[in-house]
Amino acid sequence: MRIALDAMGTDHAPDSEVAGAVAAVEQHPDLNIVLVGDEALITGRLARFPGHDRITVVHTPDRIAPDEPPVSALRRAPRSSINLGIELHKEGEADAFVSAGSTGAVMAASQLTLRALDGVDRPTLGTPFPTARGTTLVVDSGANVDCKPQQLFQFARLGAIYMHDVAGVARPAVGLLNVGSEPLKGTESVQAAHRLLADSDLNFVGNVEGRDIIHHGCDVLVCDGFIGNILLKFYESTASFVADTMRSRLAEDGLDPRLDGLFSGFDYAEYGGVPLLGVNGVSIVCHGASSPRAIKEAVGVAKRAVDSRMVSHMARDLAAGQIGNA
Amino acid sequence: MRIALDAMGTDHAPDSEVAGAVAAVEQHPDLNIVLVGDEALITGRLARFPGHDRITVVHTPDRIAPDEPPVSALRRAPRSSINLGIELHKEGEADAFVSAGSTGAVMAASQLTLRALDGVDRPTLGTPFPTARGTTLVVDSGANVDCKPQQLFQFARLGAIYMHDVAGVARPAVGLLNVGSEPLKGTESVQAAHRLLADSDLNFVGNVEGRDIIHHGCDVLVCDGFIGNILLKFYESTASFVADTMRSRLAEDGLDPRLDGLFSGFDYAEYGGVPLLGVNGVSIVCHGASSPRAIKEAVGVAKRAVDSRMVSHMARDLAAGQIGNA
Repeated sequence: MRIALDAMGTDHAPDSEVAGAVAAVEQHPDLNIVLVGDEALITGRLARFPGHDRITVVHTPDRIAPDEPPVSALRRAPRSSINLGIELHKEGEADAFVSAGSTGAVMAASQLTLRALDGVDRPTLGTPFPTARGTTLVVDSGANVDCKPQQLFQFARLGAIYMHDVAGVARPAVGLLNVGSEPLKGTESVQAAHRLLADSDLNFVGNVEGRDIIHHGCDVLVCDGFIGNILLKFYESTASFVADTMRSRLAEDGLDPRLDGLFSGFDYAEYGGVPLLGVNGVSIVCHGASSPRAIKEAVGVAKRAVDSRMVSHMARDLAAGQIGNA
Repeated sequence: MRIALDAMGTDHAPDSEVAGAVAAVEQHPDLNIVLVGDEALITGRLARFPGHDRITVVHTPDRIAPDEPPVSALRRAPRSSINLGIELHKEGEADAFVSAGSTGAVMAASQLTLRALDGVDRPTLGTPFPTARGTTLVVDSGANVDCKPQQLFQFARLGAIYMHDVAGVARPAVGLLNVGSEPLKGTESVQAAHRLLADSDLNFVGNVEGRDIIHHGCDVLVCDGFIGNILLKFYESTASFVADTMRSRLAEDGLDPRLDGLFSGFDYAEYGGVPLLGVNGVSIVCHGASSPRAIKEAVGVAKRAVDSRMVSHMARDLAAGQIGNA
């Protein structure tokens, strides 16, 4: 098992990547990591952690900035750490790719190089949302703003396989984000997706309302990437704002309770990155502010996806779905 | 000034309504309230608060349940407290209508009886979201799931007038809910709405992302009712869940700090109900769980809408907009 890790992605690259890679190989005895990035910088950091012969380096000085337009950036820097890492995966030199760089660039390079699986119109980003009981995978969380019913249905299938294979949920409950519980609620597109889901062999639990998300209304929550992205950013910012407000008010009372970790359940970074689902490979995107721990968790997610043969399962399932719908 | 208040709306009607009405007339010396509902029940409760000759009763025993399909319920019970209250307003016997009953029934009755203003394709619900700095009015928050760009534009105009007249914001900042800051982000419909807003005389501050909402990215946040409803329910449930989690963890530490009111800033009930904007009248919907205080606040909102001549301002503005676009 060898995972290619973009060493130029986080805000403080390559420090988080190097420390995360070291932690990952320590945790997994069968894991090798290829760090892709500036060799001098990486080896300088690696020297602080001696004895890790399961970490190697593929050199490139080229980096894509988080705010560059993805497609033109990939053309400008064809030997960027993102391009090189995904090519390593494509050519079988690595079994998966993990990056905390530009989400758009990782998505575009994954689609251009790895290609979408047969039966997948549009690959999708699935973001794990912490809830009162475990995590809910929100698909799509920002890759596709306008979605047809058939695409929402594909997101559901991809998300269910991810939650089964990677999160170990035996029979993932799939919900459709909507404004009410009745099948005929919502936009025309969402109503049509409801019919596709209800007629499928998925464990479809029906519509899930905004108020049900936090109480874990389902394991896989299907929505278009417009609302998924807004919901994700709203959740992250609101949870941290509420926590900060509470902390400062308690401090006014002279109270300083052990608040560290109080909101760890809401810390997006702990959940091991965001998988790009529906491409012919394992491609995981991490937050630009990822800690070493978050990088380690994302590598662990990539490893579970490889170990479980997630991509083969998706290829088989979606190709079958396509034939069934033809 | 006379406001018709549905006395049969809350989960514990008419207790909250009667106590809220008493508090409202005590606060506003020029205010009269007509309670619409079961006279025997209402007068029984009113007897606990002697001396309020500015509260009168219009009797009806008919009530619409929160879960009835709105339009058929209005037909089934033409003398329901919602129908009667809105008719009082229509006929000039009351200057505004407030109800904590079925949102769908209040909306339907308002549109059927009061009618939409010229230039308004679809009336809209605007829900005040508490933020780090004051409130942001989210329009539409659930009345219309599929929205054309022109409708989003009308929501913006109606919301801006509401925030000016009722909330006293001198020049309300209008934002468009979107997945990025650039004008070409989002769905085709949202991009078209962006052009309409950018070319208008509104104080348009551009796209507002999910993460900007809590930090008060704008005074009026424009979105379709599908995402508005989901966002609202997600916000309410998440804020209370985070608060509950924090409380129980503090209790584990043996701490019992003064937490009452800690999250009052996030208490939807305090914000005085949800206005239905774009009809030829003042129609305010409250939460079914409204406290007497929430009812009093909603009556206060209705009073400010009447005092400020909000509906005249909307009629003038939207009719002008229609001519300009014809």
